[in-house]
Formats: sequence, structure tokens, C-alpha cells
Amino acid sequence: MTKSTINPLTSWVEIPKNSDFTIYNLPFGVFKNKRLSPRIGIAIGDKIVDLAVLHDTGFFSDLSQLPADIFLRDSLNAFIALGKPVTRRVREKVQELLLADNEALRDHQIRGKAMVNRKEATMLLPVRIQDYTDFYSSIEHATNVGAMFRDPENALLPNWRHLPVGYHGRASSIVPSGTAIHRPKGQYKDPSMENPEFGPSRRMDFELELAFITGKATKLGDSISTAEAEEHIFGFVLFNDWSARDIQAWEYVPLGPFLGKNFGSSISPWVVTLEALEPSAWQVRFRIHPFCPTCSVRLLMALTSSWKFISNPRMLLRRRCAPLILNTCTGTLPSS
Amino acid sequence: MTKSTINPLTSWVEIPKNSDFTIYNLPFGVFKNKRLSPRIGIAIGDKIVDLAVLHDTGFFSDLSQLPADIFLRDSLNAFIALGKPVTRRVREKVQELLLADNEALRDHQIRGKAMVNRKEATMLLPVRIQDYTDFYSSIEHATNVGAMFRDPENALLPNWRHLPVGYHGRASSIVPSGTAIHRPKGQYKDPSMENPEFGPSRRMDFELELAFITGKATKLGDSISTAEAEEHIFGFVLFNDWSARDIQAWEYVPLGPFLGKNFGSSISPWVVTLEALEPSAWQVRFRIHPFCPTCSVRLLMALTSSWKFISNPRMLLRRRCAPLILNTCTGTLPSS
Repeated sequence: MTKSTINPLTSWVEIPKNSDFTIYNLPFGVFKNKRLSPRIGIAIGDKIVDLAVLHDTGFFSDLSQLPADIFLRDSLNAFIALGKPVTRRVREKVQELLLADNEALRDHQIRGKAMVNRKEATMLLPVRIQDYTDFYSSIEHATNVGAMFRDPENALLPNWRHLPVGYHGRASSIVPSGTAIHRPKGQYKDPSMENPEFGPSRRMDFELELAFITGKATKLGDSISTAEAEEHIFGFVLFNDWSARDIQAWEYVPLGPFLGKNFGSSISPWVVTLEALEPSAWQVRFRIHPFCPTCSVRLLMALTSSWKFISNPRMLLRRRCAPLILNTCTGTLPSS
Repeated sequence: MTKSTINPLTSWVEIPKNSDFTIYNLPFGVFKNKRLSPRIGIAIGDKIVDLAVLHDTGFFSDLSQLPADIFLRDSLNAFIALGKPVTRRVREKVQELLLADNEALRDHQIRGKAMVNRKEATMLLPVRIQDYTDFYSSIEHATNVGAMFRDPENALLPNWRHLPVGYHGRASSIVPSGTAIHRPKGQYKDPSMENPEFGPSRRMDFELELAFITGKATKLGDSISTAEAEEHIFGFVLFNDWSARDIQAWEYVPLGPFLGKNFGSSISPWVVTLEALEPSAWQVRFRIHPFCPTCSVRLLMALTSSWKFISNPRMLLRRRCAPLILNTCTGTLPSS
């Protein structure tokens, strides 16, 4: 990969200007279309590389650890569980096959079958999520929320500077971006109200978060050192932590957010690997598809201002995550 | 079942005095032994009725909705998902087969194969848990904890009397009773300490809870009315919410309990059905096997004093539970 800083990589796949899916990115996702059952692919330009077809054709024959049906699954879980040495090699192999001067796939008769149009594909939830943890990872966000719900004078609590404050969210209500979210019903009590009322939330909000997906299992009681963190983090998705602020404000003391959050959370369907974010690969350009079309400007602003935060993902990653099976950890990006 | 109040039911299975597993209880569990792969059974006395053998022999032939391999699973999930009309009928059929004067199984040649010794069986986690919610369901407990962590003068917060305060726990660290739990490491900060320290918890505690298991799926955005609750509650287990109070006290503001709880939670392997707790069946005697042998006296005391609470399970059940796939909801029993 380091050569990329000298000679920019080019591909035989046409990549539209401003595409998120350059040859440096190559995220993993799960897709289906009218003809194909759910399977794992890698995005490039307007195409999806159907990994099941590549595997079937023998392009991964030097990777003996890959089960025959590993890409014919409706989630990345089994693939991720193979561990970084294998998943990294698969992505590198695909990158190699997509290089402009590599004939192996470019001139192969299965090329048409292997390259699926992204527009015709339906993206599924990329992983089956066992547990999900939301970290309070930006000092600006923790201070904003502290001022909103508690005391503006003492918005940031003392523990925040010492440990990654976080809570478990509801894993089963995480859905792929684009899924309609119902406005939740619940109790709220404005300061002016004597008693709480029940009804649809009147203060819907969103939080743009960067989520990381871990899938290398640990055993109950094991610890992961910060030095080992990168072997456990498969990749990243964007995460919209939809929030019903009126429900949250009334319910959250003392056990934390609950019904004000668990009615639905959206994630992007393409998982950008940790490798794609390695310093030598930071020529990657991300353009964000906001989850919520009507608030795209606000989301883009939030993300643009978060560059500094994203640009040192290791700082975030090295925050400890509790023992896990398949886990998504998120943290709200600074929005100011 | 109503006849039980007139003529107590008796079984051809010998049931030791003080056994938890009378013909009125008949809980479901998942077991294996040296000879048998994981499968679903019902406990009675010192035996487990192997439901896979009964099904294979044709005892459930009038239940056409039962897939052939439904009892040859390592969790109750698929069985529970069939819904109450089916699961209730299976339990009733087994109860009928176990009655003293019923010859069908008693005198059948497969009787020896169908009745497995409980002592020789290894009990597994009865369900694959997708999400788990811990409710703050006893006023005594909420007041005790409020006094312990906050202000003894205002221990019970205003929302407690209006809604079921709860939070999501870590589903993947729920293990069957008997599994060794590692003492967790974490940060704590006593009032006397200027800065927090990291190390093994020095204030381990437990909470005896009654957990209910739901498994009839709902769709994202659907609501369940309290009137429908019983169609969703399959049954109950005991739940030990192991708690590291020093870690919890430092981390839990403002997002709730996290690492002070998620290092492990123990549940009993036998799921007592809602039907077994119906008023007409309350001749069932429960004797509790405490999770922690060294604190059995305390646990038994806690449970004995909880009778009033248990004896009206509908009151607890009707507290709302968020949309779910497979969910375990618990609430701490009053301990004083």
C-alpha cells in the first residue's frame, strides 16, 4: 500500500468523479438483487464485486482458510470471524485484481457476472449484531448534552476525562440506512407539566456517529489490551442514533437512555475497513450520504467539522470496549 | 388445569419430596449428555423428558405445526417463535402423558430412552438472547440503590412512579447458572481518592432478579398493548445480576450501569412457563437453588420475602417492554 503515496492507484473499473468508492476504499457489504440471493461484495465505483463469483472461479485459491460458501451469507459475521490476516488478504487480492494493468479479472470471461450494478442491488444490514455500545466519545457532545439535560455550569461530569463513558443500546433495532423509522411514542414531562403525558415524541433529533464493528470473539473474562485493539476492529460504518429528546429527558435518570433511543438506529450498509483508513491510504476521499435527506446540510457540516476526529481513528479505537461476540461500538461525532 | 384444585395431579414418575420439578411445573430447558447432542427437554422429578424422542415416536402427531427437528436445537428460540397456542399445547400434552393413570408413555417401549437422568445431563443456556433489558421494578430496590449511590433523602426519583425505568444490559455475557464469573477489573474512585484507580473490583454484589423471556417477534415500530403481554411472555428464569458496585458508582453517570454489570449475568437453565404460574396451578412449590452457594441464606431470605411480588406476576408482566426479537427482561426482587 505504501507505493500509493508515490504512484496513485488506478483501476480498469470506471470510477465516477466524486465517487465514495475508489480503489483505495473497497468497503465490504451484503447485497442481493432480483437474480442473486444475499451475498458479500466489495464496492468500487458504480459496481459491486461479487466475492462469491470470484471465490467460485478460484481467485482466492491461495487462501485455504476460506470456506466454499463464506461469501454466500446474509451477513459478514462468519467472514469477520476468520480474523484480520484472512479478511485483509481478501481485500488486498481484490484491490490487486482491480488495478488498471491487471488482466486476470479484467479480461476474464466471468467479468460480467462478477461485476454487479450497484443501482440494481438492495443493500442489507452488513452484520448480525449481538451487542451494541454507544460511547460518549466527543467532549463537545458530552458537554452539549450535559447542558441540555442537566446543569450548563457543570455540563461535563468528572468521570468523562478518565474513562470511556458508554451504555448498551438495543442491537435488534439497528437497521440499514433508508429503512423507515416510526416516530416513537412514550412519556414526556416538560418542566411546565405537573404530570407526565404519553404520546408521539415531539422532539425528534439525530446524532451522527462513527461506529466500529468488532467480530473476533473473546471469551467471557478475557481482556483486550489497547495494543491488540486493531486486530479486533474490522471496520467502520456511519451510525444515526435517532433520539427522542423529550422521552429521553424524562426516563434517563438514573439508568441511562432507553425508549428515547431504542426505537431505531440507522447504519450505512458499506463497512469501510480499518486498512482503508491506514495513513498511507488517506488519499481516500469520503463524501457522505446523509441518512436523512432533509438534514443533509447539517449532517455534512457536522461531518466536515469532524475531520480531525476521524483522522486519528486510533485514538478512538484505543478506548476500551467490553468483552464481545459481535459488537458495534459507536461514538457521537462533535457537531460544533 | 382447573381440576387440579379438586384432585391434585399425580404422576407415574417418582418425584422426590421437596423437588422443584412437580407435574405442575414442567419447565423447558436445553440439555445434552455424553450420548445426546443438544436438545430440548422438560424436567420432572429427577428426570428430563426428551421431547425429541417423544416427537420422533409420534406423540405430537396432532400438532402439525411442529417441524420434525424442532426439539433437536441448542436453544428454545425456534420453538418459542411458534407462539403460545403451540408451546402451551406441547406442555399440556407432556403433562397428560405423565399422569399416573396414562399408559401411553408409561408402558411404551421407548420410555427408557425418553426419560433422561437429570444428574447426567449438562444444562445449556436455554435461549439465544438477542437483547436484554433490566427493569428497576421493585420500589424497595430502587430506593435502596438511590440511597447507596445518590441522596438518601431523595432516593426514589420522580419518574419511577410513572414508567418502568430500565436499561439495556449486555446480552452476550448472560451465562447458565454455574458458569464461573471472573471478578471484573475497572476504574473506581472512593470519595477519599483524589483520582480514580484501576484494578479488580473490591465491592462485588449480586441482585436476585426474576427474568421473563419473550420470543414472539414484533416488527420495528409495532407496539404491544398490556392486554397482549401474555401472548409474548414464554416464561421465567431466575437471574443473578452480578454487580461491581465500586465500578458502577464511578461510571454510571449519566448513561447508566455498564462495565459494573456486563462482565457476566447468570440465569437458571429451566424456563418456568407462564402457564405454570396460572392461579389454578399455584400449588406448585418452588424451592430456590441459589446461584451462589455461599450466600444461599441471603438469597433464600430475599426470595421468601418476595412471595407477594411473585404471586402477582401479571402486575410485573404488564409493565411495558420495548419492541423485541428475543428478549429477556428482568427486574430486581425486593430484598427487604
